[in-house]
Amino acid sequence: MENIRDLFVEIFEINRAEPSRCGGSHEVCLQCAVCRAEGPDQLVGDLDNLAQYIDHTNLKPDASQHAIKKLCREAATHGFKSVCVNPSNVELASFQLTHTAVCSVVGFPLGASLTEIKVHETAKAIEQGAGEIDMVINLGCLRSKHYKDLLNDIATVAAVCHKKDVLLKVIIETCYLNNTEKIIACLVAKKAGADFVKTSTGFGSGGATLDDVALMREVVGPKIGVKAAGGIRDTATTRNMLKAGANRIGASQSISIIR
Amino acid sequence: MENIRDLFVEIFEINRAEPSRCGGSHEVCLQCAVCRAEGPDQLVGDLDNLAQYIDHTNLKPDASQHAIKKLCREAATHGFKSVCVNPSNVELASFQLTHTAVCSVVGFPLGASLTEIKVHETAKAIEQGAGEIDMVINLGCLRSKHYKDLLNDIATVAAVCHKKDVLLKVIIETCYLNNTEKIIACLVAKKAGADFVKTSTGFGSGGATLDDVALMREVVGPKIGVKAAGGIRDTATTRNMLKAGANRIGASQSISIIR
Repeated sequence: MENIRDLFVEIFEINRAEPSRCGGSHEVCLQCAVCRAEGPDQLVGDLDNLAQYIDHTNLKPDASQHAIKKLCREAATHGFKSVCVNPSNVELASFQLTHTAVCSVVGFPLGASLTEIKVHETAKAIEQGAGEIDMVINLGCLRSKHYKDLLNDIATVAAVCHKKDVLLKVIIETCYLNNTEKIIACLVAKKAGADFVKTSTGFGSGGATLDDVALMREVVGPKIGVKAAGGIRDTATTRNMLKAGANRIGASQSISIIR
Repeated sequence: MENIRDLFVEIFEINRAEPSRCGGSHEVCLQCAVCRAEGPDQLVGDLDNLAQYIDHTNLKPDASQHAIKKLCREAATHGFKSVCVNPSNVELASFQLTHTAVCSVVGFPLGASLTEIKVHETAKAIEQGAGEIDMVINLGCLRSKHYKDLLNDIATVAAVCHKKDVLLKVIIETCYLNNTEKIIACLVAKKAGADFVKTSTGFGSGGATLDDVALMREVVGPKIGVKAAGGIRDTATTRNMLKAGANRIGASQSISIIR
């Protein structure tokens, strides 16, 4: 973390003397858009009732209305945390559900749309009933080391979400990143005000790994969320992801997982 | 086509007695937003100079600015038809190029964003220099048989494009569709005013096939474009796609193709 700390101090003009109070391995205070130091730890204790951690997900491009209604019924029946759907299914899902949150993806799955479009997509999803937003970072900015643009993209969407008390999860798409990039992406997302960092879209070249989840939890500390998604299909893997530091799971095979 | 013709006559209140004048296998006039009957045939004669048909493509989510600049240099050097990039790279690509078109994708690759967002994304891409737009249809609408919504999604984006003399290619993502759905998607795109129908995003479960290209050409007739994309990596495949009815090719390995 030494080099990354120097990088942050330089790029974001962070005061090196001010220590972190939220337990992230970055140690110096990131001066986040949202300070989480007084908030509760988000680590998971209960490994029995898994449904409470699961975003029950159908992001298939050809998902029919019938399939989305089925997803919603399953979520209500089994007590999943939310349903996670594409933007064009948010209104339908919101209409189906009363006690279960609807999560919309934004800039999904490539993250390569303009901030202005991500903002519009976020506002529209919230208007149509989304209580949670899973956005994808601009990986091109990260790869090109344009960290201020990377931060601005996330912070602008975060501001739209938080104005409406909507939760923002930020997908860093670990499969395309080396460890340094994973750490930088987590720190930028945290500084920008993300409520969660999330491993994967499920549409990239790989999904969640235990190592990535452990790294992400170590970097961001206990006070913000870590969502593991992509390729999680059974109970054992789900429990292991939670033990590694995740407190939310994205899955389409959620019913097999809780059985 | 008999059943599909009945379907169209019913859903879109088409006059069965009015014959098509543009050579599509649908035979009855679709009363398209743009009539192409007087336009030239778009079939390809010259199979030697392949560069003129190729959209030189980099849609990788983690493409750096360096990679986009390289793509643009290659397109200018080899005389490719356009560069095809993600929305957040359109401005950069437009800045690099003077004689080569910039093509932006929209609603990409899932097609499951709202029409309002696709329209905003299209307008913004055009403002930033895109001369061509490759949009993805809403596959959920197609699967749910909501054909009027499917048409409206495409027609609204087409109107934005044509107001600015920008070409619209409509990606039907054949890998998820049965033959009936492929035919319906092509006819709806044609009726909506698309300048091209395109096989694939390259991010789905499969890419262009010769059978699909031949089917699409047969359905839409000779007067509008057919773009084959996804998995086209060598000269022989490119030539075969053109022989099968394509007049535009999407490829990232474009330089190997023309060598």
